[in-house]
Amino acid sequence: MISPELPKKWSRALILAVRPSVDGGRFPIKRITGEAVAVSADIVADGHETVAAEVLFGPKGAPKSAEEAVRLKHVGNDVYEGCFTASGVGMMRYRVRAWVDMFATWQAIFKRRVDAGSDEAELRSELLEGAALLQKAARKAKGEDKRALQAFIGRFEAGEHGAALEPEVTRLASVYDPREGAAESEPLEILVERPLAQFSSWYEFFPRSFGPDGAHGTLDDAARHLDYVKEMGFDIVYLPPIHPIGRSFRKGKDNSPTAGPGEPGSPWAIGSEEGGHKAVHPELGGLEAFDRFMARAKELGLEVALDLAYQCSPDHPYVKEHPDWFRQRPDGSIRYAENPPKKYQDIYPIDFESADWKNLWQELRSVVAFWAERGVRTFRVDNPHTKALPFWGWCFASLRQDYPDLIFLSEAFTRPKQMYALAKLGFSQSYTYFTWRYSKWDFEEYLTELFHTEVAEFYRPSFWPNTPDILPPYLRSRASFQARLVMAATMSSSYGLYGPAFELMDNEPHELREENKNNEKYELKRWNLEDPNSLKPLITRVNAIRAENPALHGNRSLRFHRLENDQLLAYSKREGDNRILVVVNLDDQHTQAGFVELDLGALELSEHEPFVAHDLLTDERYTWEGRRNFVQLDPHHLPAHILRLSPRGDDDYAARGRAV
Amino acid sequence: MISPELPKKWSRALILAVRPSVDGGRFPIKRITGEAVAVSADIVADGHETVAAEVLFGPKGAPKSAEEAVRLKHVGNDVYEGCFTASGVGMMRYRVRAWVDMFATWQAIFKRRVDAGSDEAELRSELLEGAALLQKAARKAKGEDKRALQAFIGRFEAGEHGAALEPEVTRLASVYDPREGAAESEPLEILVERPLAQFSSWYEFFPRSFGPDGAHGTLDDAARHLDYVKEMGFDIVYLPPIHPIGRSFRKGKDNSPTAGPGEPGSPWAIGSEEGGHKAVHPELGGLEAFDRFMARAKELGLEVALDLAYQCSPDHPYVKEHPDWFRQRPDGSIRYAENPPKKYQDIYPIDFESADWKNLWQELRSVVAFWAERGVRTFRVDNPHTKALPFWGWCFASLRQDYPDLIFLSEAFTRPKQMYALAKLGFSQSYTYFTWRYSKWDFEEYLTELFHTEVAEFYRPSFWPNTPDILPPYLRSRASFQARLVMAATMSSSYGLYGPAFELMDNEPHELREENKNNEKYELKRWNLEDPNSLKPLITRVNAIRAENPALHGNRSLRFHRLENDQLLAYSKREGDNRILVVVNLDDQHTQAGFVELDLGALELSEHEPFVAHDLLTDERYTWEGRRNFVQLDPHHLPAHILRLSPRGDDDYAARGRAV
Repeated sequence: MISPELPKKWSRALILAVRPSVDGGRFPIKRITGEAVAVSADIVADGHETVAAEVLFGPKGAPKSAEEAVRLKHVGNDVYEGCFTASGVGMMRYRVRAWVDMFATWQAIFKRRVDAGSDEAELRSELLEGAALLQKAARKAKGEDKRALQAFIGRFEAGEHGAALEPEVTRLASVYDPREGAAESEPLEILVERPLAQFSSWYEFFPRSFGPDGAHGTLDDAARHLDYVKEMGFDIVYLPPIHPIGRSFRKGKDNSPTAGPGEPGSPWAIGSEEGGHKAVHPELGGLEAFDRFMARAKELGLEVALDLAYQCSPDHPYVKEHPDWFRQRPDGSIRYAENPPKKYQDIYPIDFESADWKNLWQELRSVVAFWAERGVRTFRVDNPHTKALPFWGWCFASLRQDYPDLIFLSEAFTRPKQMYALAKLGFSQSYTYFTWRYSKWDFEEYLTELFHTEVAEFYRPSFWPNTPDILPPYLRSRASFQARLVMAATMSSSYGLYGPAFELMDNEPHELREENKNNEKYELKRWNLEDPNSLKPLITRVNAIRAENPALHGNRSLRFHRLENDQLLAYSKREGDNRILVVVNLDDQHTQAGFVELDLGALELSEHEPFVAHDLLTDERYTWEGRRNFVQLDPHHLPAHILRLSPRGDDDYAARGRAV
Repeated sequence: MISPELPKKWSRALILAVRPSVDGGRFPIKRITGEAVAVSADIVADGHETVAAEVLFGPKGAPKSAEEAVRLKHVGNDVYEGCFTASGVGMMRYRVRAWVDMFATWQAIFKRRVDAGSDEAELRSELLEGAALLQKAARKAKGEDKRALQAFIGRFEAGEHGAALEPEVTRLASVYDPREGAAESEPLEILVERPLAQFSSWYEFFPRSFGPDGAHGTLDDAARHLDYVKEMGFDIVYLPPIHPIGRSFRKGKDNSPTAGPGEPGSPWAIGSEEGGHKAVHPELGGLEAFDRFMARAKELGLEVALDLAYQCSPDHPYVKEHPDWFRQRPDGSIRYAENPPKKYQDIYPIDFESADWKNLWQELRSVVAFWAERGVRTFRVDNPHTKALPFWGWCFASLRQDYPDLIFLSEAFTRPKQMYALAKLGFSQSYTYFTWRYSKWDFEEYLTELFHTEVAEFYRPSFWPNTPDILPPYLRSRASFQARLVMAATMSSSYGLYGPAFELMDNEPHELREENKNNEKYELKRWNLEDPNSLKPLITRVNAIRAENPALHGNRSLRFHRLENDQLLAYSKREGDNRILVVVNLDDQHTQAGFVELDLGALELSEHEPFVAHDLLTDERYTWEGRRNFVQLDPHHLPAHILRLSPRGDDDYAARGRAV
């Protein structure tokens, strides 16, 4: 704010804006270790002075003296740009420093004097002024550079014009610029996470469905199933809640309000007399079985994600021990969850505004810490938008002080600003509207918002074609499952599937809700993993393509390419010379064809030389040339191409190509 | 920023963005007294709770208890909007408060219970909860409202469902909402200025050119010239610097480096042994003449603007008294202004970074205060971008504490971000690139940026077709002068002319620079004000149209209308039922015609009823109907229409219409 009081100190440089930032710096931007942070700043000073600027960065909390600096370059219109690399795992901070570069300003004017043929006396006088500026730089320099600067000062004082314009004096003056009267922007923050936060494939399954001979599966049974998941090439195996399931008002098959004897109930009705969020359901084998499951996952290189659902069954120990952590009716009974006229008597929501909120919040935090101590680093958070939002900001920041490598996936299917707010508060990844986008126009609009606006600074999408809660109606054919798999896995660097329902194309819809009939949430299922129609080979191939092609490890490079047929969607991603072009047929019934009009500039391909389009799904190769190239996709064969584009002679992925 | 420490207090409502704001609240937005401040905020809470929000506003520095509140309304997508009116002259502050409206949330769910046919026991229990919420409201209420709330509580407790949904209980609960756990945004600031800051017409002339019989004019001569300016309907008369002019290196006729005997010099070479920035040039008649000039202007209702040029001639008293306020060469001599190879030996720039900067800044501030004490409230600031930018922020904020009604016009023709930065720092108005915009596309793009982006919050443009420094080459014909006058005066709510050069169409160009030959800056001119070709009648008419039509008093309503002929530019402004459509022929040689395609929605005119297009320049009336209407403009007659559009029978401006 502008003040009517004389400032204590001030700078001729005014830093008006620093990008990237989220909500003016109130929330951190997100990066993974090793990812670039391209900084840009609007900086003005008075007159035609040369402004110099740099971005200072380092771990948050470290002393300023430990900060590194990268120079920003003027790119026109008073915008300055530079780039540094996020490092470590944890919070970093960055800010911009700007000042008038007195030597560069002097030098530019001196050059004009020389060019204009100024007289010798004038030039000698100006050189003395330049020498005085170099003296300040020499005071900062050491060793050889100091001696070099002193030599230049001598030549300036001797009136040697040429010395003033040598590149070396420019370099030395810039490096040892005293930065007098520098302005500094307010620090901004970066949440630096490990690469898995950005590039990940998730596979969700219900452990209890993998028991032998129809019995309730344990985590030991689930551990044996991990090889199957690993074969498909997933990174993360995500388990629905593994905690004791409540008995009061337990839901039966197909969400029936009463459970018959022996019915297992919904894993999201957490808590019984056997324990709450820090216990393992006895029928899953208890904590020991969990530890064995973790050990097996670790052997296989699989990350385990648990479900964090902050809600309680009426039998949860919290209900007896802390009734004040729940809302009560005027008659003193505890409120169950409801969305009138619907009632969810098997679930008590937690009252984040409880008078005892401090203890409540600490206890909820300790649930994550408990599992983190057992090696869990990734959590899928159930319905976070129905919990007090500031809780998440505090909880994650506090937990990450002890476990900086924690990853949280937000399962909020709600209004866009709520979903974005949760991401700003610290979620590493978020579910999206991908599931409800249908047309080419839908995808172009939505992905542009996600990847090419400020949203990309804080929101990392995870694309899921299905979940136990969502079976979209278009998943009606093999081709639609195939198309959605390819889209989820190549549009977004993170994606996930709920299996084996997905690969076995289980798509019998519920009569009332957009979810599977006989939902696995309420019963044990038996899956025929040997089904010859299984999509497992395609999933395996797609995950291998993701692993092999760096272009698919990020989202910022995504570009759509024009294709006049509205049923065909074409988009590319590029990382260096790795170029992936995906073409998808959105029509699962009919063959569609057309000419894709490539943005060759974005792909850095020549307009005049043929290049190879190598379909990594089928191992077929096409020779393409120029902007317009023909594509045709038969949904009864395969509704998508994943094409690697390379200049001829450079198709080094050929050996690895393998047809599905 | 998100903190790992438990918060002291927190809110379920999260205010993510408040608009309008400039650079995240670092600079104030600008309004005039009585102008609307339309506030919008992005606010989210958890779940489906009803969020309530209000904007709190009041004078900056007043206690919070003195603030007024206006409720914001949810307009969808978690955006809340409301509007208040800027009042007074000075700094105001505003912020948004948001909270979960517990009663409204309860009421919405209660209604769904009733609609779903919930049983009596459940509804009675819920009514008790509603009653408890009303108790909190009743504690805040007084008098009749308190009694009304207590009556509702009684009816709730008696189990009367209908009471819960009555509009009156909704109103009372909302008014007396206890706003528990409310979040508040950081305060934002408004610089509130008097209406002249927004709507003004400026007329610049050199007093010294109005002496009798070729003599140097005095301010008494200039005072006699004020009637002429007033007749044309201008608001502000702006004088180039009136201070003693230096003798050393005085510039001669047409910017010659040496002045002959008796040559008057440039008024911008300020300061001689007769005084500096607080003195009046003896040949202008001294301070007493100035006071008489001010008195005459006051009689006529004309505002006087002085030129604030912070630079000194070598003869300025500051140079002797404070040589350290100027930059020195290594030999101890003071640096004159230069832009190699050009040298301006008649001017010493001030060193805002002088070791004695505090005294220097205070002295410069005192110059404004000196003239403010003599009644001057408006200043045109010469080249503010060549002075340290933070100086302006402090100087204006400090001066406005003593003189809140000061108006400053920034004469910075430089890079866009510098011009915008000066406006952010407190300039009321700014010169623009209007002078260098030529094509229809130029104007559409530039005016959209000025009036329909964030720029409109802090930058008030003043459009000048000419100045003593600028004679654009297209001012070659009577038609081009006429067109530029109409455009400047109707596109921007503030505009100005340098006269009598403008109305007498003095346009002999200098050979090297885009300015008048035999520039009035360096010599006395004689103007034939009785020239029958003078544009004075047109200027008079245009200023009268501006005064009579509220649509032209602001800029936000500007809309361009499609017209296929690229030489014809059509735009409108509207304020209530006052609708002005301007059509300009950009071609000063040939008649141009075409169909203007009106955006009738923006004009709030019916597509199906004829309306009157009354040309306020010529007093001609046309009956138009529907979107497409024919226009034709002959530059040899008049290159512009200023049309008032009215439904038939509503053309109440007819009586005032007067042909040019």
